[in-house]
Amino acid sequence: MRNFNEFTITDAVVERVGNASDPRIREISEAVVRHLHALVREVRPTQDEWMAAVNFLTRTGQMCNDKRQEFILLSDTLGISMLVDAINHEQSKGATETTVLGPFYVESPPEHELGDNISPGMEGAPLFVSGSVSSTDGAPLVGAVVDVWHSDDDGYYDVQQPDDVEGLTMRARFHADGNGRFHFWTIKPAAYPIPHDGPVGDMLEAQGRHPWRPAHVHFMISAPGHERLVTHVFVAGDQYLDSDAVFGVKDSLIHDFVEHPAGTAPDGTTVDRRYFELTYDFKLNKD
Amino acid sequence: MRNFNEFTITDAVVERVGNASDPRIREISEAVVRHLHALVREVRPTQDEWMAAVNFLTRTGQMCNDKRQEFILLSDTLGISMLVDAINHEQSKGATETTVLGPFYVESPPEHELGDNISPGMEGAPLFVSGSVSSTDGAPLVGAVVDVWHSDDDGYYDVQQPDDVEGLTMRARFHADGNGRFHFWTIKPAAYPIPHDGPVGDMLEAQGRHPWRPAHVHFMISAPGHERLVTHVFVAGDQYLDSDAVFGVKDSLIHDFVEHPAGTAPDGTTVDRRYFELTYDFKLNKD
Repeated sequence: MRNFNEFTITDAVVERVGNASDPRIREISEAVVRHLHALVREVRPTQDEWMAAVNFLTRTGQMCNDKRQEFILLSDTLGISMLVDAINHEQSKGATETTVLGPFYVESPPEHELGDNISPGMEGAPLFVSGSVSSTDGAPLVGAVVDVWHSDDDGYYDVQQPDDVEGLTMRARFHADGNGRFHFWTIKPAAYPIPHDGPVGDMLEAQGRHPWRPAHVHFMISAPGHERLVTHVFVAGDQYLDSDAVFGVKDSLIHDFVEHPAGTAPDGTTVDRRYFELTYDFKLNKD
Repeated sequence: MRNFNEFTITDAVVERVGNASDPRIREISEAVVRHLHALVREVRPTQDEWMAAVNFLTRTGQMCNDKRQEFILLSDTLGISMLVDAINHEQSKGATETTVLGPFYVESPPEHELGDNISPGMEGAPLFVSGSVSSTDGAPLVGAVVDVWHSDDDGYYDVQQPDDVEGLTMRARFHADGNGRFHFWTIKPAAYPIPHDGPVGDMLEAQGRHPWRPAHVHFMISAPGHERLVTHVFVAGDQYLDSDAVFGVKDSLIHDFVEHPAGTAPDGTTVDRRYFELTYDFKLNKD
């Protein structure tokens, strides 16, 4: 195997990766080679453009740390994440629709009791969130694990703050009650630009795109015998619903965050200023 | 733009990146989106496989530093680098054939005088290298800049050694003489495995591939009015010529490294043990 030209090299590499013993690794490797080679043959990069691509990917990897995942951002902004999501949820079969995980989920978020305020001391309008978790047949999913996370009033997540400023906040793990219901207090999140001070931000700028996402609250919900649900609920009326930088908006996930004057909230709490209320009922597919 | 499925999302992302003001960035962005989406639709990754890909790319970036370029290794081992090389050198038009740059080139290598030993104190068989640089019309390229670099007797480059063990060695920059000729002493390089203690090594193992490259000396040669030449000369008879891990071998680049007994070398040097001799004449295309 020598003397390859731009057409014969693809078969040579496909043959080589075909030595993989795991059939799935072989299948993926062969497809990666065929599609990347087709891309290169179409684009016909100069050596300098190839080196620019190497440097872009290198910077993207080096931007990643325990609080930032630039390759997820790259996947999100190229529509790959929503494509993978679509492939894995072809039919909702009555379940709540899914959307991207995003780069800000933290494993094992702080455990909270139902009714807790998960954002104590944070500036912003109070938000009362309640809802239910049920199977697509309507059966409540008692004890379902409900992870939530969202941005602050300026559009930043806790993990984007300098170390140790606030610790983990605006995120929590709840366990649904005996009726599959949950409720908690937090602050109303704002629309925000995805982190754009790195290579992905450079890419968006070069592509003439804005980095904004419409305001939303993330949910990841799990219950025995059911598919894990990863989704957001978007704030109705947000100006970025039709131009989400990561292509994640679905109509069924847009919901009113209802404004209320100061007074007594649904859980009996007295609130001394205007607050918002979100109620959303989630349905999970059986495994 | 909402509610995308696995087919509609590609057009949506292509439309979005079509805002790029630079037509080349627009062309590349659109092609990247189309080909990557086609790959994803063919392979149909699970969410876990997608996350494994994110983690693989992240590790690849994080493995890079000023002495290691894991994304070039990835490009090399997937045949991308040789494909880009082929696209940029469709016709050799009489010039020396090209091959991959590889990850071990160092900008501004140590300047040496013709005749110098560029690997003093290194173990291995002495190697006398000489040759010429000319234009494809035969005119000698006086003062051509000749960068050379190669591995040691164990197959390692200087930059793979722990910091400050040897500094830069087995690499140099020469200036061809008034006849476009150059000569120097070094040691005979060995075949070597590309660095395989990182994600690319894991990939090769999963694909059932060995990481070896046949022994070679790298050359990068520049002269005014001519295309820069990036190539290697491979040692004839090497066992890996037909299975180079990076697909870089071309017959015209395989050459005898002639063995000589102890005695007087072509430059008059007395050598007290067997040594090798490589002579190669390089031809550069005009711009």
